[in-house]
Amino acid sequence: MGLVVQKFGGTSVADADRMREVADHIARTRRQGHQVVVAISAMGKTTDDLIRLAQDVSRVRPGREMDMLLTAGERVSMALLCMALSERGVPAASFTGSQAGIITDTTHMKAKILEVRGDRIRQALAAGQVPVVAGFQGVSQTRDITTLGRGGTDTTAVALAAALGAAVCEIYTDVTGIFTADPRIVPSARRLGRVSFEELLEMTATGCPKPAMRAVEFARNHGVPLHIRSSFTWEPGTWVKEEDPSMEQAIVSAVTHDASEAKVTVTGVPDRPGVAARLFRGLADRAINVDMIVQNASIHGLTDISFSVPKDDLAQSLEVARALAPEIGATDVLGDLDVARVSLIGAGMRTHPGVTATMFETLAANDINIEMISTSSIRISCMVRTGAMEEAVQALHDAFKLS
Amino acid sequence: MGLVVQKFGGTSVADADRMREVADHIARTRRQGHQVVVAISAMGKTTDDLIRLAQDVSRVRPGREMDMLLTAGERVSMALLCMALSERGVPAASFTGSQAGIITDTTHMKAKILEVRGDRIRQALAAGQVPVVAGFQGVSQTRDITTLGRGGTDTTAVALAAALGAAVCEIYTDVTGIFTADPRIVPSARRLGRVSFEELLEMTATGCPKPAMRAVEFARNHGVPLHIRSSFTWEPGTWVKEEDPSMEQAIVSAVTHDASEAKVTVTGVPDRPGVAARLFRGLADRAINVDMIVQNASIHGLTDISFSVPKDDLAQSLEVARALAPEIGATDVLGDLDVARVSLIGAGMRTHPGVTATMFETLAANDINIEMISTSSIRISCMVRTGAMEEAVQALHDAFKLS
Repeated sequence: MGLVVQKFGGTSVADADRMREVADHIARTRRQGHQVVVAISAMGKTTDDLIRLAQDVSRVRPGREMDMLLTAGERVSMALLCMALSERGVPAASFTGSQAGIITDTTHMKAKILEVRGDRIRQALAAGQVPVVAGFQGVSQTRDITTLGRGGTDTTAVALAAALGAAVCEIYTDVTGIFTADPRIVPSARRLGRVSFEELLEMTATGCPKPAMRAVEFARNHGVPLHIRSSFTWEPGTWVKEEDPSMEQAIVSAVTHDASEAKVTVTGVPDRPGVAARLFRGLADRAINVDMIVQNASIHGLTDISFSVPKDDLAQSLEVARALAPEIGATDVLGDLDVARVSLIGAGMRTHPGVTATMFETLAANDINIEMISTSSIRISCMVRTGAMEEAVQALHDAFKLS
Repeated sequence: MGLVVQKFGGTSVADADRMREVADHIARTRRQGHQVVVAISAMGKTTDDLIRLAQDVSRVRPGREMDMLLTAGERVSMALLCMALSERGVPAASFTGSQAGIITDTTHMKAKILEVRGDRIRQALAAGQVPVVAGFQGVSQTRDITTLGRGGTDTTAVALAAALGAAVCEIYTDVTGIFTADPRIVPSARRLGRVSFEELLEMTATGCPKPAMRAVEFARNHGVPLHIRSSFTWEPGTWVKEEDPSMEQAIVSAVTHDASEAKVTVTGVPDRPGVAARLFRGLADRAINVDMIVQNASIHGLTDISFSVPKDDLAQSLEVARALAPEIGATDVLGDLDVARVSLIGAGMRTHPGVTATMFETLAANDINIEMISTSSIRISCMVRTGAMEEAVQALHDAFKLS
């Protein structure tokens, strides 16, 4: 019995049938006594289609005009949803990012939200309406239309929930929640009733598809509980909240995997200050997103540095590293596409140091070689050969009794 | 060498190729030393597609949400045009109706423009940019998005031209201008170099397809010269201006035709005050747009009233008239779909009373029966059988030597 923000992505509103189902669900939520605010994406692949159209028309595509173009999509979906709600006797009104008072900086195509004014949203709620807000968009301090980049509607939803003091932000998607492992790999994988923000952040960083990391971070920073659930089955999904210190933590919550990265190894690097800095500044200057970084202990004053980058960036990363090799005194630069990351996630790991050993033993017992290791307080990741990834996930899921 | 407002409709920007051609033309206009402001419609049939989508989703379609939906179309076209202009080295910026300061009343789907603020348009011009403004849309006094109804982009263009003091408003279309008759019927029809606002208004009322009448009226009221021309051949077209009293008027400028209306005849009506009022109030209450009205002289205190209505409204018009028949004492109500209107238009008619006689003689000589006649100071219209329409147009075009 409170204010609920519901976010519906492109798949959830891909066509007229889906739009009507979503309207039915919103009407149901109202009948249960809740106030509802909706954040909605463009229908299906609309945004991709618009990008393709722009590419057909012009090689030059200023960010301001791309944002004007791309924000057409939510206009369509939100207006249609309001019509479907009206048909169901639910008063509704659509609001653009600008009308909703979502103020951003002036960085077109990946703007940051500076403020959510939300006056018209509050007025609509007070008038008994369901405000349907365009996701992914805002208006800059200079009154130009902006978009928030990929995953922008998740961010819109969470920002609205924070500004309005919502009891929960429900993220509707095409999966039924967060699982202990990918059910396509581990048939006995189980849906988690709840995870902590930190655990979810570690998962999204290592291959769990949703929701957008920046939205999860925003939710954590503003204490907005998330509920990740399905817009196809409508069953309850996974809650994401602050860790509850009074509850005993599961040691391991989930096993995740990620085959999207490649490994680069720079060998024979002199072990002296400034070498790593020079290398990673060079990569940062080319906007290459480095994830895991491992540096071995040095032998005879020489060490190896390995790091992972998105597979698409491998060629450019090798180029950068090879160009810097003489300067940093490296003997060789090697690239490897045939790697995948397998990770254990769990807030309980902090107090259970045995987890790492069990993980390594499990992989060894299955004859799976570990190419690279990195850890955080609630995550352990191992790089393995791509071919061993699924077996590793299954073995770890069994070893930690996650079924 | 002044400010030119250029209006491009859906056909002019139907696809990526057309969009690039339009951008080329704007760049050319700039090179000729003009400042350019653009008013643009949605691409091709976008608006119709969006209406169909709404019909698929919901039987209830509030005007506010229809307007939110339909305004998505211009967002796409104007952003794409700005990209194409940028590619050609022409700095450009798109503006929604709201950003352009096009303030309307709150009548959704057929809002009236109350004011054009245009501050951002003037700023963009001062900064050397081509402002590309969304046609057909505005923002109401209550900050909701509105649309201007059919022909809305013509109205936007003319309103911008008036507010900015433009030298001319160029209406680009798929014809090369206004002709002395429809060239499909009269192969020797000639393009007019200029017509007066009044003549054009009479033409749009009787079957000349463009531009929107309300835009022409707006242009006349604000003294904005129009130039109707082709976005396919780019040749100079027809100028529409105030009548020039110093010039001798052509007696007849054009022969137009219109087969979109049906005729209703109410017979044996007592010739007393209030009868016509009762009938036409009944039709107006059903929002039926009556055009020609003819009442014959009464014989023995009874008269016949004939009027024309859009063919689509015939059934409803008959229903209304038949329901009122007992009350107004009519003996019969007859409908006729097999009629077409042929009109002579010409500012010179005012001072040449012989035109009407020549028209009737010409039709008689071709054995064409006249079913109904109505006149204004610069127009004479005759209803004829549909099958005789083309012959009538050709004969009149010859008789008045318009080739």
